[in-house]
This record gives sequence, C-alpha cells and structure tokens, in this order.
Amino acid sequence: MHQLTKRSVDYSKWYNEIIIRSGLAEFSGIRGFMIIKPYGFSIWEIIKNTLDKMFKETGHENVYFPMLIPKSSFSKEKKHIASFSKGCAIVTHYKLKKNIDQEELTVDPQSKLQEELVIRPTSESIIWKTYRQWIHSYRDLPILLNQWGNAIRWEMRTRLFLRTSEFLWQEGHTAHSTEQEALEETKKILNIYTDFSENIMAIPVVQGVKPYMDKFSGSETTFSLEAMMQDGRALQIGTSHFLGQNFSKAFDVKFTNKNGKQEYVWSTSWGVSTRLIGGTVMLHSDDHGLILPPKIAPIQIVIIPIYKNQQELSQINEIAVRIQKIIKEKGFSVKYDNREFFTPGWKFHEYEMKGIPIRINIGLDEIIKEKAEVFRRDTYEKVDVPWNHIITFIPKLFDKIQKNLYQRALNRTKKLTMISDHYEDFKKKINNVGGFILAHWDGTQNTGKKIQEETEATIRCIPICTKKEVGKCIYSGNHSSQRVVFAKSY
Amino acid sequence: MHQLTKRSVDYSKWYNEIIIRSGLAEFSGIRGFMIIKPYGFSIWEIIKNTLDKMFKETGHENVYFPMLIPKSSFSKEKKHIASFSKGCAIVTHYKLKKNIDQEELTVDPQSKLQEELVIRPTSESIIWKTYRQWIHSYRDLPILLNQWGNAIRWEMRTRLFLRTSEFLWQEGHTAHSTEQEALEETKKILNIYTDFSENIMAIPVVQGVKPYMDKFSGSETTFSLEAMMQDGRALQIGTSHFLGQNFSKAFDVKFTNKNGKQEYVWSTSWGVSTRLIGGTVMLHSDDHGLILPPKIAPIQIVIIPIYKNQQELSQINEIAVRIQKIIKEKGFSVKYDNREFFTPGWKFHEYEMKGIPIRINIGLDEIIKEKAEVFRRDTYEKVDVPWNHIITFIPKLFDKIQKNLYQRALNRTKKLTMISDHYEDFKKKINNVGGFILAHWDGTQNTGKKIQEETEATIRCIPICTKKEVGKCIYSGNHSSQRVVFAKSY
Repeated sequence: MHQLTKRSVDYSKWYNEIIIRSGLAEFSGIRGFMIIKPYGFSIWEIIKNTLDKMFKETGHENVYFPMLIPKSSFSKEKKHIASFSKGCAIVTHYKLKKNIDQEELTVDPQSKLQEELVIRPTSESIIWKTYRQWIHSYRDLPILLNQWGNAIRWEMRTRLFLRTSEFLWQEGHTAHSTEQEALEETKKILNIYTDFSENIMAIPVVQGVKPYMDKFSGSETTFSLEAMMQDGRALQIGTSHFLGQNFSKAFDVKFTNKNGKQEYVWSTSWGVSTRLIGGTVMLHSDDHGLILPPKIAPIQIVIIPIYKNQQELSQINEIAVRIQKIIKEKGFSVKYDNREFFTPGWKFHEYEMKGIPIRINIGLDEIIKEKAEVFRRDTYEKVDVPWNHIITFIPKLFDKIQKNLYQRALNRTKKLTMISDHYEDFKKKINNVGGFILAHWDGTQNTGKKIQEETEATIRCIPICTKKEVGKCIYSGNHSSQRVVFAKSY
Repeated sequence: MHQLTKRSVDYSKWYNEIIIRSGLAEFSGIRGFMIIKPYGFSIWEIIKNTLDKMFKETGHENVYFPMLIPKSSFSKEKKHIASFSKGCAIVTHYKLKKNIDQEELTVDPQSKLQEELVIRPTSESIIWKTYRQWIHSYRDLPILLNQWGNAIRWEMRTRLFLRTSEFLWQEGHTAHSTEQEALEETKKILNIYTDFSENIMAIPVVQGVKPYMDKFSGSETTFSLEAMMQDGRALQIGTSHFLGQNFSKAFDVKFTNKNGKQEYVWSTSWGVSTRLIGGTVMLHSDDHGLILPPKIAPIQIVIIPIYKNQQELSQINEIAVRIQKIIKEKGFSVKYDNREFFTPGWKFHEYEMKGIPIRINIGLDEIIKEKAEVFRRDTYEKVDVPWNHIITFIPKLFDKIQKNLYQRALNRTKKLTMISDHYEDFKKKINNVGGFILAHWDGTQNTGKKIQEETEATIRCIPICTKKEVGKCIYSGNHSSQRVVFAKSY
C-alpha cells in the first residue's frame, strides 16, 4: 500500500486521501453528492445520538416536516430566498415516459407541476407556514423542535463532508413569546454545540457573532463556532441564529400575550451537519491516517493476535476473547480481529489508517508473561500491561487520549492565534503562518471585502468571550469597537 | 371536546380523526405530504431504534446514499423503472431567479440540468451502480447494508401514515455470492419483521409470497407480511425481496468466485416504513382514541393528581414524584402531569386519546389509604394498588397489556379468517364480513383481475406457513396447487 500524501506537501489532498482510504465516504457519480460508507456513517450515528440526548435533556423534541417546499412558501422571507434560490434543487415534474420512437425515458411534459417544489436547503419556510396553524396564544409557546434529516444546497466546489450538495444535519426551529427568551435559546444551543465540540469531538472552538454581511439570510444575529484546522485555516463548526421576528412577520405568526394583546412570535434556528465529521478528521489526523477522539470512535479498541501457527493462535484466541469481554463489560466497543487471511502487519496499518484509538497486541511472548502490548494511536506509544491491570488501565488511557487530542489542538490554536495592529504585519502573518489574527475592523462590508481580496482572509467572527478593546481598523484606520477574528477558511 | 366518529360509523374517518386528535401527524400544505408531529415522531424513534438493533445484531451496517438518482442509472433495470417512473419527483433545475418586470421568482432556464435527477422512490439503482465499484471477489461478499431515510413516490390517493408521497423508512440492500445465501437473507429479514411486528407492535401477521403480478418491480420473489385491521381489511406491513441476479445483470456486477470464475452477484432488498405507525394505530385503537402497545408507547405511564386545593396538591406531589422515580428506575417512561391549568377530567380524556397504556391517579383518599388507582387503557379497568406493591405491579401490568393487545388482534384475525370453496359463498363473505378468505386460485393474473373487479378483493399473498392442499380455482375451476389469502386491502 502506498503512503498517504503528507500534510506538509498538500493538506487538501491528504484530507481527501484519508477519507477514501479509511473508508469513511466517497463521491457518487452525481457531482457534489457523496456516499457515506458504513464506517463514516457509524461516526455520524454517535454524533447524532450524543447531540440528540443533549437536545432532549434541554426540552427539545424531534419532528419531521416534508422535504419539498412550495416555491410560494419558500419565497416569503425576502432575504432568505434571495440567498437560497441561487443553488437549490427544483422539482418540476412527477412522471417519466418512454417515447414511442426511442428506448430512452424522458420527462413527461403532462406531469408538469402547477407550482414548483424546492428540496429544502433549510426548513424555516415550511415550518413557519405550519407554526401559523399551531400558535395562537402564549400558552402554545415556547415550541422547541428539532429535525434530523437531509438537505440540498447546490454547491459548485465541493469537498467530502466539508461541503457537499446534499448533507445530513439537524435543524432546530424554536418559537418564543419574548425576545429575551429567544436570545437565551440561541445562546443555550451555542453552548451545547461548544460542549459537544470540545468534550466529545476534542475540537476547541471560538464562539462569536458573524459580521452582518455573513449572517444567515433571514436572521438578526448569527452565532457561530470557529475551529482552527492544522493548517491554520478556520472551519465553521455550527451556527445558532437569532431570527428576531423576521419569519413570524413573513408568515404572519402572531400570538395573544398574557394581557390579551397580539404580538409577533420570536424565533431561532440552529444546526450542525455531517461537516462535523470532516472537521474532526481534518483537525486530529496525521500522515499515517485518521485519528479519532475515543468518544466518537465506532471501534475504540482493537485486539490483534500475533502468531506463527494454529496452535499459537488458539492459545491467543482464548486470552484475547477473555480480554475483549472484560473491556466490553466496561462499556467500550472492542473488536478482536483474528482473520487469518491478513497479516498482523497489514492489520496494524489498516487500523492506524482507520484511527482506532487503542490497539492491543497479543503474541506468544505476551501469553508467557501474562501481559499485553497496548498501543495508542495518537502518540504511537507502546506499553506492556499485565492482564490483571487491563481493566483499570484501558479506561484511564481512553481519557488520556481524549484529553491529549483536545490539548494538542488547543495548544496549536493558541500558538496560531496572533494579534496584529498593522496591515503589513497582518498580511505577512496571514500569508506566512496562517491562523487566527485578532485585529481591529471598522465594521463595514467594504473593508471586509478589500481585505479578503488582498489576503484571502475573512472575518470569521466577532468573538464573544474576549474583553472589548477599542482601536483603529487595521485597513481603514477608522474607529473599531473591538478586535475580530480574521482567518482563511474552508 | 366532541367525540370521535365511531369505528362502526366510518372506520376511515375514525382513523384520520385519531391521528389528528392524538397529535401524531397532520397533512402539510403540499398534497400528499405529511408533517410527523413530536408525538408521532417519538413512536417512529422507538420503532427505528428497536429494528436498528435487530438489524445490527444480524450483521447489518448502516450507510447513506444520495437521495437523487440520475435518470440514466434509474432506467437500467427495465421492470423496475417501468413501475417507478409513473410517479416520482423529478429535479430538472437548480436555480430560481427574479424576473425584471415581476416580483415573483421563476425557475431559471439557464440552470437546466444536463441530466434529470429523480428523488429516490427506492435506492436499488444508485446502490447497484456503486456495488459495481465495491464488488470484485467473493471476499467482498456478502455486503449487508441498510439505510434509514426518506423517499418519494407520487401518490394520487393518500392517507396519513398508510400512504403518503414522502415517507420515512429503512431499505436494506444486500449482495451475496450464492442464490441460497440471498434467499436465506430474504427469509431472515422476513422473520425479523415478523418478530418485531408480533412482539413489539402486537400485530399478528401472515407471512406469504406476493402473486407474481404484484411483486416488487425488479424482484424474483416478494415476501410480505399481511396484517388484518379491525374492519377485516388487510394491510401490508413490510416486504422482503429476493432480487435474484436482476440488478447485478442490469448494472453488470460480477465477482470472481473461489474457483476463479466470474459470476453475477445475487441480491435482496427489504423495507418497512412509517406505514407501521398507521398499522398499529388502526389495529389497536378504539372509539375513545389511540391505544398503543406499551412497548412502543413514548409515554408508558402517566400519573395524575386529583386535588381540591394547593395543600392537597403539595401532599400529592410528594408521593407522586416518589412513585414516578421508582417506576422510572425500573426502565419505564413515566410522566407526572400536575399542570394546574387543566382539570383531572381534561387530562383523563387527553391521555386516553393519546393512548397512554397505564394511568395512575392519586387523590387525597389514595394518600390516606397509601394506595394508588391504576387504570389500564386497553380494557378501561381500574384497580387500587398499595404503594409498596406498585414496583412489582406495574411491570406485570405492562406485560399483560402488551399480551392482551396481541391476543385480541390474533383472536379477531382468526375469527375473520375463513375458508371458502364456492365463488357465491366467497362473494357473500367478502361483502358481508370481510376478513381473510382462504381460497383456491388458478395462478393466472386474469382470474385475479376478474375477482378484484367483481369483489374488490385481491390476492394478498400465498401463505408460506399453511400446509399445501390442491384444489380447484374458486373462479375458473382450473387446477390450484394451494389456497391463497384473499382480502380487501388498504
């Protein structure tokens, strides 16, 4: 098997190769649409189940709305439609027919729909049409719904997991009686995403507000989480939108408040997608293949027998199955791979490529000494562990790896987060080092655009956790009320 | 609140009213597309999680394929396409634009796709295109994949859950090196569906083979499960298809067998959908509302306080929370509804409508006597249970209700399953009683069609568990090798 392209040579190519070689996903025959293979999908299942539990614990319920949205409904919120109409899948007919003179099927013109239907790029416009029927009084509020499903946004330049025309995601859509409650919901979700990202995916994030020109179309404020990849570029991990009364006004959704007066409803929407998988792969992996944080690894531990003949194998089998059992009982997912067709060397390579956090090797030497060789994928360290210590050793190592991955990413993020006060210095840093640059911005779209044209860097967010400090815009010299995060991004 | 339409008056109307009134689902603004509301969706989550576990325990893995299928790929298997092309959603464009002279958005003709894309009505044609890349040797087989997702089949006459243009489902797609292995897979899945249907959903089923004219387009043999509804009509619960080599030939998927020879791959596909929810509602419920088998009830037990004043309520709260806790610890889902805005009478009605299997009422009288009044939804029976017996009483009652619902349905199915040997008698039974009629059929499509035209009954299946018995066709008098199941159906 040939080696992966090295990160230092071509980070993008390395990323694509890892996805393919570890069996996470591949592109389908349809441009921009991917197939999520079993290994990749099982990571998505862990992400989904973990987040779903967090949403339910905070009072949210799941729901399912139609995937097709009538054009008229889609068009109601003007800014929303202006953005999403530029790349969406439009259903216009419902029959194919065989022409008399040819073999091939063509669209039956008689099956033209009276009104075109758009495959949801996001579901605000069908959900708010429905909320109009559901919301009458303050007693009907809040509505805290979430939907797991697929969506389509036509993309011209795609990348496995990070940007695909179809993606899997969750989209939360909540309705509230007050502005404050809706804002609190937006932030509550941002914190859930942060907790999940940092503690489960081991991805440190910067919480912030998107500059007004980059906010979600139809929102008042978009909060986002930005993570730094190994090459210093930013990846937007998730977003939580405060929608104000934009959708309730567009769809005329009012409620009677406690004083008997009619008011427009306040709302939020928020989502994370299969992009999370791309983020975690890109952030943690190395030149040998995937590295997965133990908490989202579908196989957390693999046991490999090392033997010369059948007799040795059957001795090892007995011990390996016993070790597998005691680790499994601790709640870990353990695979024992004693397939005879593949050599131990092939298996080592395979499971390193697939990013299994912990590998346990058992050979005759280990049997004699009643120990096992434990290998950790993140650091390539090996240590001998006596059998009767395994049950305590493995959970500790599991935590250690999870923490190490987070700490490694955090150290890199900190190291590559720099302050800059002069445009020349800024350009040098962005081009030579990359990373997050904290710099002053005058708050105008024009300045943002110029800086992007000249450096490729964009304003990722206005961070919410740093202390405010006034200054002068790095580009225009005009007043700035706080530093923002600039970076090149995915 | 007005009463539900009675089953005896209008079974269809009763069914629709229950779905709406219990908050399971509603139709959206788009004809034939439904919104699955939180309560309905939580039933789907239980179905999904339970079946998913059964699939995984038998070696299946989940995967995700694109929802859009290029027309050329869709057209490969001729019988398959002939059937599904008659009602499918076709994507032809990817942009909307605003015309200069008008407000409204129209489809941008410049965004016409080179090749139309069909939203999957089922995924054989995209999956088999991919299997061609994945399968080379016998070592690549079997492939045992399953997908949870949405699909669209354009339906003209729709009914909530039972027949909707978009539905949620799982579709299994397996590939095997031998015919026998593929056939065994088809039957293994049929048995998983049967186990699930009977033991989880409390729905007795008849396993059978579909007559050749009604089999899945592209299959060799379609196995189905047929369940009898309260009005004697049949509902097809799930299907498992033996596809032979039809798709491997259409997509040219060959493998090298152990002897180094090239062979076409054997395959199966199988699925159940949100229709299962419709089946369970229609089969178990009564004139007071929904009845849910305890094993698929999102809320299994509800506790209701009955009080005159705040002091009584706070006394009851203390006991109720304690009881809720001990039942929850046993693994049941229990809700304590002490909302003050609603009266106990309103709550009784509400939870009967929603089909909560067990209700526990606690009032001052119960506090004094240290007991609780336990009500079961299926029989409307009430019994007083001392507090210290509740922990043993509830699990037993839970099992009793689950079994009673199954037994009730089984008794009805048996009672309404009749033998008929004369066409006049057959017609009388079908029209006056309904139910399943076991009768001889000559095996021709023409006879099936005539009987359907004259009686509305169709051949539901050729049952596989009854003993074979030759005879004469009830309609043509020609030879018949075994009795088949006739019924009117949903």
